[in-house]
Amino acid sequence: MDIRQRLAENMRAIRREKGWSQEELADRAGVHRTYISGVERCVRNPTITIVGRIAGALGVKVGEMVD
Amino acid sequence: MDIRQRLAENMRAIRREKGWSQEELADRAGVHRTYISGVERCVRNPTITIVGRIAGALGVKVGEMVD
Repeated sequence: MDIRQRLAENMRAIRREKGWSQEELADRAGVHRTYISGVERCVRNPTITIVGRIAGALGVKVGEMVD
Repeated sequence: MDIRQRLAENMRAIRREKGWSQEELADRAGVHRTYISGVERCVRNPTITIVGRIAGALGVKVGEMVD
């Protein structure tokens, strides 16, 4: 599984554990909802800065989503 | 310290521990030497795919460089 698939699966699972919609996560991370959808569908290749903001919004470390 | 600064400092420290030049790391990660230099100087905002390749080349987890 490549790093983007790991990111997609882990961020979706953590988001759902929190009961958040993609829109809720997008608002908290300061990105557009469609961007969150794109990362979760592996059609986006986010920069490390965006991945850091998503991790921060979810309250986890980047490593928990990609390693 | 933002995530790009943590990445820059940690990857440089790990690279130097291995005694590798930027060129050596670039060859192993499959990126151009100037790109490695740019990430280490925080003037590049690499995608998660590139950060994954750099971590793989250095033999560390992404979390060890950015968390």
